[in-house]
Amino acid sequence: MSLTHQLSTSMISSSSSAFLAPSSFNSRTQNVSVPTSKRMGTCKCVVTPQEQMTAYKTKVSRNANMAKLQAGYLFPEIARRRAAHMLKYPDAQVISLGIGDTTEPIPQVITSAMAKRAHALSTIEGYSGYGAEQGEKPLRAAIAKTFYGDLGIEEDDIFVSDGAKCDISRLQVVFGSNVTMAVQDPSYPAYVDSSVIMGQTEHFQKEFEKYQNIEYMRCNPENGFFPDLSTTGRTDIIFFCSPNNPTGSCATREQLTQLVQFAKNNGSIIVYDSAYAMYISDDNPRSIFEIPGAKEVAIETSSFSKYAGFTGVRLGWTVVPKQLLFSNGFPVAKDFNRIVCTCFNGSSNIAQAGGLACLSPEGLEAMLEVIGFYKENTKIIVDTFTSLGFNVYGGKNAPYVWVHFPGQSSWDVFSQILEKTHVVTTPGSGFGPGGEGFIRVSAFGHRDNILEACKRFKQLYK
Amino acid sequence: MSLTHQLSTSMISSSSSAFLAPSSFNSRTQNVSVPTSKRMGTCKCVVTPQEQMTAYKTKVSRNANMAKLQAGYLFPEIARRRAAHMLKYPDAQVISLGIGDTTEPIPQVITSAMAKRAHALSTIEGYSGYGAEQGEKPLRAAIAKTFYGDLGIEEDDIFVSDGAKCDISRLQVVFGSNVTMAVQDPSYPAYVDSSVIMGQTEHFQKEFEKYQNIEYMRCNPENGFFPDLSTTGRTDIIFFCSPNNPTGSCATREQLTQLVQFAKNNGSIIVYDSAYAMYISDDNPRSIFEIPGAKEVAIETSSFSKYAGFTGVRLGWTVVPKQLLFSNGFPVAKDFNRIVCTCFNGSSNIAQAGGLACLSPEGLEAMLEVIGFYKENTKIIVDTFTSLGFNVYGGKNAPYVWVHFPGQSSWDVFSQILEKTHVVTTPGSGFGPGGEGFIRVSAFGHRDNILEACKRFKQLYK
Repeated sequence: MSLTHQLSTSMISSSSSAFLAPSSFNSRTQNVSVPTSKRMGTCKCVVTPQEQMTAYKTKVSRNANMAKLQAGYLFPEIARRRAAHMLKYPDAQVISLGIGDTTEPIPQVITSAMAKRAHALSTIEGYSGYGAEQGEKPLRAAIAKTFYGDLGIEEDDIFVSDGAKCDISRLQVVFGSNVTMAVQDPSYPAYVDSSVIMGQTEHFQKEFEKYQNIEYMRCNPENGFFPDLSTTGRTDIIFFCSPNNPTGSCATREQLTQLVQFAKNNGSIIVYDSAYAMYISDDNPRSIFEIPGAKEVAIETSSFSKYAGFTGVRLGWTVVPKQLLFSNGFPVAKDFNRIVCTCFNGSSNIAQAGGLACLSPEGLEAMLEVIGFYKENTKIIVDTFTSLGFNVYGGKNAPYVWVHFPGQSSWDVFSQILEKTHVVTTPGSGFGPGGEGFIRVSAFGHRDNILEACKRFKQLYK
Repeated sequence: MSLTHQLSTSMISSSSSAFLAPSSFNSRTQNVSVPTSKRMGTCKCVVTPQEQMTAYKTKVSRNANMAKLQAGYLFPEIARRRAAHMLKYPDAQVISLGIGDTTEPIPQVITSAMAKRAHALSTIEGYSGYGAEQGEKPLRAAIAKTFYGDLGIEEDDIFVSDGAKCDISRLQVVFGSNVTMAVQDPSYPAYVDSSVIMGQTEHFQKEFEKYQNIEYMRCNPENGFFPDLSTTGRTDIIFFCSPNNPTGSCATREQLTQLVQFAKNNGSIIVYDSAYAMYISDDNPRSIFEIPGAKEVAIETSSFSKYAGFTGVRLGWTVVPKQLLFSNGFPVAKDFNRIVCTCFNGSSNIAQAGGLACLSPEGLEAMLEVIGFYKENTKIIVDTFTSLGFNVYGGKNAPYVWVHFPGQSSWDVFSQILEKTHVVTTPGSGFGPGGEGFIRVSAFGHRDNILEACKRFKQLYK
């Protein structure tokens, strides 16, 4: 009998599991305590009160940085509230314009390439195991060419990843706990949360809704959503997102030139999040590297998520130019590469095949069509709130609409909209204290849902 | 003209790039300095000596923990040496039994499911965006059932990921910098390196080939590759891998019972790496959770990489039982969940469809066949070195063969084998000082290559 056959037989035939050890050893599982509730046939609990009192605890202290984090990460929190709402109103047609999740099918030219790659993995010639941690060469080259053209960004400056959010955390691991950071306020929560996790901050101050030791750069209608750099303190790292999530604003060339100069004067590193750059329809820069000198002070992170509907497929990239140096002259890219090799193993080869297809002429055209669709959605939402007399921001170069409810609490507005219209939005204050009084409405949705949501908004605020 | 069309036209027609801003703004790129070497047509350098002298440096200090890391991560280092060898011997038929990279095609039942999922993403009904960060419910349930049967591990204890290596780093982020850790010596380098990166260690001590503040648990032929726990100091975290990478040894039920008791006495947390568990063909435990009480002291991380050839597809999982508590009673799983939600966005939905197919009856059978094939390879390698008079370890329950070259330097043996046979192995000392004098031979390879490599070994050592 072959080894293979032996394995198959012994493992597949195991009664309780296809995998576990032969049943002669399963008797020991009878010693494993079964929760009382199970035996009694009542609701299934993890621990009974009695067990809870005597529960074994390890002697490992909880990481103090984790304990500093406030509540849950914003979007899971919204998902929980949405779920609770659906329990309360089981028949309601809930529309989600909250988390910013893509809804439109991925163009076939892209999924076909992924399916082809998947099938190829079943052939001797098409099989591939570990890929380069930094991503496949043709994809790195295509990203450099498509998004950075003649900006002097080279193939080896590109690190392919499973998404911008994941790279933000990897960058934080590179920087470590002894750096200081600045964020736009409001901003995408992953910047602040990853900073807290890495121990770069002090405690959360409830009265200010801020973590100590983070420089919050207020962005509001008064300053055109670009921070007043003359009053911004020097930090090591500056997170900057344009087109901005959540405000939908897009920095101009002049503003970004100011930002690069500010970083250069201070010796800071900008982490530039350009995940929505393809939504720009005017002449504003689509990359920080369009600004002369940016390669010496900036990293750029981006993603296929909102371009190709890859939120579930998972593919992004980060540019760390070789010209970017720590104070001792050591290239930042070398440390980022070390983290990518040690803490990551590259993104899925099938997703990478999809990314390459995205950057073919047909793929680009298909992506732009999807983006165009979401931009039409955005216009419908902007027009709706404008017609209702609200001050509305963003929307032009981004799939997010930032609606002002002056003097009101964002969470109250969020709850009111959910309760009255069954539409999930995102409370502005979830992005930082500067977002208080605003609601972010995402334009990711089927057209019918966008139209229906807008109809309900009109009924609520008429 | 529709918005979509406008976008497409303006972006696709841009001359230098399909994406960048209109050409009116591209003139500024002429100010970007082009490396002198490019203009002169000589070899391409990053910076010329003159530029190096005047290179701008930021004022951000390099993370001191990153600076503690020694050389490169082991496997990229081996890849570099292999590349150098291929330059030296361009005609040599180099066989890689080094990194442990799978070579056999993925069974069609699995790739078909991935292709199907990819195609479905192009349909309204089949499209899905962000998935649960913890993984899709059916996959979590299938993992719990297949690998943990009646061990009391529930669906919500399972966190699906892009691989065990990635989860090891995420676990280190959960633990933070104030924990102490123990590793088997030798061991898979990601444990030690991620510990150094997180700042858990002091400096590397060249004379001992060890980092200060890590407890190295020596595993060698004398102790049957199981550490002497009576002389092992207490640490917060204990990394333990069985079947072991690199030694190929597999801990017995008695040994694992000892280990769990040791952790319990010390209040430690075991991070149990079971990435090779399906290679076990005798009665040894395939999961740490087969040991009574382990759920209160252990986390288990595993992967589809070496079962289904998913090294490039990227799919793994980590079990964090809800019974595992920090000293203050806070569940470890809650903090791990927070990290998964904040620093990760779930693994690719296409890879998850593949994982689910792996756990169907046909998928399981197909995986076991691939595993059986690699186990036959292993036997060929074991028999070869045994016949040559070497002391050979591992191989029985793992795809790795651990060959003893007493008194010799691992890197010397590695270099000699590469130079004389064009076969890439892995030097044992790359896994820690306890690996000195050993070579790890991986059984991942096409049968022809395994036979050819063994023929060359026989010529070299006859």
